[in-house]
Amino acid sequence: MAKSSEAVKVVGAWSSPFAMRPLIALKIKSVEYECLEEEIGCKSEFLLKSNPVHKKIPVLIHGDKLVCESLIIVEYIDEVWSSAPSILPSDPYDRAIAKFWAAFVDDKFFPSMKESYIGVGEAKKAGLKQMVDGLALLEDAYVKCSKGKPFFGGNQIGYLDIALGCFLGWLRVIEKSFQMKLLDEAKTPGLLNWAETFCAHPAVKDVMPQTDQLIEVSKLISRLRAASASSPPK
Amino acid sequence: MAKSSEAVKVVGAWSSPFAMRPLIALKIKSVEYECLEEEIGCKSEFLLKSNPVHKKIPVLIHGDKLVCESLIIVEYIDEVWSSAPSILPSDPYDRAIAKFWAAFVDDKFFPSMKESYIGVGEAKKAGLKQMVDGLALLEDAYVKCSKGKPFFGGNQIGYLDIALGCFLGWLRVIEKSFQMKLLDEAKTPGLLNWAETFCAHPAVKDVMPQTDQLIEVSKLISRLRAASASSPPK
Repeated sequence: MAKSSEAVKVVGAWSSPFAMRPLIALKIKSVEYECLEEEIGCKSEFLLKSNPVHKKIPVLIHGDKLVCESLIIVEYIDEVWSSAPSILPSDPYDRAIAKFWAAFVDDKFFPSMKESYIGVGEAKKAGLKQMVDGLALLEDAYVKCSKGKPFFGGNQIGYLDIALGCFLGWLRVIEKSFQMKLLDEAKTPGLLNWAETFCAHPAVKDVMPQTDQLIEVSKLISRLRAASASSPPK
Repeated sequence: MAKSSEAVKVVGAWSSPFAMRPLIALKIKSVEYECLEEEIGCKSEFLLKSNPVHKKIPVLIHGDKLVCESLIIVEYIDEVWSSAPSILPSDPYDRAIAKFWAAFVDDKFFPSMKESYIGVGEAKKAGLKQMVDGLALLEDAYVKCSKGKPFFGGNQIGYLDIALGCFLGWLRVIEKSFQMKLLDEAKTPGLLNWAETFCAHPAVKDVMPQTDQLIEVSKLISRLRAASASSPPK
């Protein structure tokens, strides 16, 4: 069994929404950790060895144990440091609902968000529409899950707050890029307030990147992609 | 909180690997259930209402509660009927590993399996290669997780056994269709034995479809797909 006192490291990148998830979870649990920062556009040998199946950040290193996949890491953190505030709801049905919407965020919302930003032509339009539709569904889920409290998880940040909240930085990048509001008083009043409260939370504010910093990352990724597309195959 | 004594129904289809997962979990827990069988190629109004986001089977109905997404349903069953044999491992790290490979099965293995069967040309070839590579990774995972015992979950069927095992019926369909062995003594000796033990288990044998029955379903799906492709758009 993993001991909660063993050293904790996170292989991640400050601009990655997925890598932000373990960090917020560790902060909620008041666990000290070290960040092993990956360079954008370049996977370290250490990362390739730590996550040979997906070759992706984040990876949690806890003593001699490696845990991959951001939401699985959040659940692991919740279970190992079980005496600190809970991240997943205690009731099985509430847990199932939180996991359902977290899976929706990863499988439907994130791909549409990505397509709306880096896609072209009709695919970009379709991505934007799907993202807006997804936000409407998530607004409804927020109303039902939060029951008038500030977070999806009630009075405290929970699993679904972390799952969705990590995308708020990039959502703002898209808003700025399209010069439009994706969260507003008319269509998503709950999520609009939630986003502000979430980003100001002590477990979040130090790890949520600024919009301008993310725009610079976005330009760098575009340059790397263009260079890769124009370089001859090896 | 959901009461374990409330009536249980599963909206599913006997030929669906995903719909098989809740049934195996309920059998492990010795929970009586009723099957609400969906017709192949036709989604009932009840299903559309029960799972409006994904419009997919399976859906678990427990009293007045609805739970969607097959692996989330299995976790829900494990948590509600917690006094019966456990499905997920008790150690947080073992749980994380089981969830990691179950996610691999759904996100990587299943899509490659589908592509190898219904894809065409190069995509079909690539799907077959990815599926074979996936089975090699799963063989390695089996050796590590089972530690010489019959199941991924040790001496009892666990989460990852259910996640992967539900595809064994369709794996046999592909083996028959391609006249090749996907599980064999040389490359996947562990999985070969595991598959036999899994399919003969009392919680599995009555819900695992016969290969010939699935081949008939496969023909029906092909006919429905062809009819849909040739009908004028509405």
